[in-house]
Amino acid sequence: AVHGARKMEYYGRFLALLVLALLIGFVSVIFSLVWVFRYREGLSWDGSVREFNWHPVLIIMGFVFIQGIAIIVYRLPWTWKCSKVLMKFIHAGLNTIAMILAIVAMVAVFEYHNASNIPNMYSLHSWIGLTAVIFYSLQLFFGFAVFLLPFAPVSLRTAVMPIHVYSGFTIFATVIATALMGITEKLIFSLRSNPAYSEYPPEATLVNSLGVLLVIFGILIWWMGSRRYWKRPPEENAKAPLTTGGTPEGTEAESTMTDGGDAEKSDLRISSEAARKQNLKLDEAGQRSTM
Amino acid sequence: AVHGARKMEYYGRFLALLVLALLIGFVSVIFSLVWVFRYREGLSWDGSVREFNWHPVLIIMGFVFIQGIAIIVYRLPWTWKCSKVLMKFIHAGLNTIAMILAIVAMVAVFEYHNASNIPNMYSLHSWIGLTAVIFYSLQLFFGFAVFLLPFAPVSLRTAVMPIHVYSGFTIFATVIATALMGITEKLIFSLRSNPAYSEYPPEATLVNSLGVLLVIFGILIWWMGSRRYWKRPPEENAKAPLTTGGTPEGTEAESTMTDGGDAEKSDLRISSEAARKQNLKLDEAGQRSTM
Repeated sequence: AVHGARKMEYYGRFLALLVLALLIGFVSVIFSLVWVFRYREGLSWDGSVREFNWHPVLIIMGFVFIQGIAIIVYRLPWTWKCSKVLMKFIHAGLNTIAMILAIVAMVAVFEYHNASNIPNMYSLHSWIGLTAVIFYSLQLFFGFAVFLLPFAPVSLRTAVMPIHVYSGFTIFATVIATALMGITEKLIFSLRSNPAYSEYPPEATLVNSLGVLLVIFGILIWWMGSRRYWKRPPEENAKAPLTTGGTPEGTEAESTMTDGGDAEKSDLRISSEAARKQNLKLDEAGQRSTM
Repeated sequence: AVHGARKMEYYGRFLALLVLALLIGFVSVIFSLVWVFRYREGLSWDGSVREFNWHPVLIIMGFVFIQGIAIIVYRLPWTWKCSKVLMKFIHAGLNTIAMILAIVAMVAVFEYHNASNIPNMYSLHSWIGLTAVIFYSLQLFFGFAVFLLPFAPVSLRTAVMPIHVYSGFTIFATVIATALMGITEKLIFSLRSNPAYSEYPPEATLVNSLGVLLVIFGILIWWMGSRRYWKRPPEENAKAPLTTGGTPEGTEAESTMTDGGDAEKSDLRISSEAARKQNLKLDEAGQRSTM
């Protein structure tokens, strides 16, 4: 009973952070829409600056918000009853949506630049942003090939998982950093005078705040995605359901989001509930002071 | 013998990455100096733009490069013979130097702005940068109070360690993101025309490349700081040397850099060499594919 109560308390903390992250992500998307509709002529697909405006909206909606949710989707406690393979499809599906939105967002900028004779790919924002989209696509491709297709042996999955997790977080952080550069560029270019960026106009306050929200969103997602005690528990019996090409389910279930190290492999040796209890017990001290 | 050979191989990989990180950090500092001396009138402390120029140089030298080294200093294999408390002083000392350089770098900007009647604190770069310096100072203060002063009980240290590690990485990533915004701002402001930023002048290529190097440096430091198999091993006997206020040395030694979870506490139950062997064995698969 004490264990159950503690478990509920842990869930409660996760849910509180989840609600906060969703709220911040949602407000970020709203802020991007207020920005383009109230201050920047709105949206359309006509080569004008209104086409450019799709860029921040789609990046924040897809490349930041949806990617962030995709990162923590295995950790939602009510999904632990669902099969691992279903959750993989949801993880891959959300990331695919995010990739498509990011690519459309890039196309909007290139079309706007070309229509207005603005050079492409000269800024640091564009260099790092394009690199992030390329690595994100590679991450999706290799993730699909190794973890969803039924051909990769367990040993390969175990070997690739830490890199998958690490590069996922790295790309996510890089995307947020690139968004901050984009905000900086756009505010400088569009607030040259009457009012200038340096005159603290309301638009600058709104969009600076949007940048701060993106940083907080990223920090929350990283915390939620990297605490071991919020991991999806291993399947009840690691040897039972042979769903994907004969590999036992739950092989990748134990990947901690920031290190694919010893924990995931040693957990495979312990039964699910015992492992869960141990996670809770061992992390108690660390958790106590996090909120 | 097989174990010893593998251990050497692991050291070799760490050292290769360390050399690469040091090289990239060093080249970044050089690039910042080339930037200000070749393209931006050099350095001095006179309220002119030459005083501003200290800002990127000191940020890259202190807040990025030295902070990065401070993060991984416990992991340098040749320091494992040194006492933990000595390493704590080196970690705290490097971070103190980085903080001082970051504060001087901020003063340079404020003095330049005030001398030239440029408003302060209007940009997203300034908002997030100042926040990062404040959190960095708090991190140093609490780190000193909890981990260096002999008053905090082991339970408190164990509870605070995951947060210390997490916020350390978060601040480091935020600092790099802020540097990228600063580069973006400065290139736009100083390359308005003849040549414009968008005309791909050599200065833009140099400084964009500097931004890319900072991202790679951050990614390397995060990888080196977060792999469990490169952790400083626990002291030979966790109960033996009572150096700091009666707390056993090695209590914080086991903190993995990205999660203060179960590993550090369970390792305390195992003897040092056994734990080390287990780390190596368990992480073998993950390690194999990292290079």
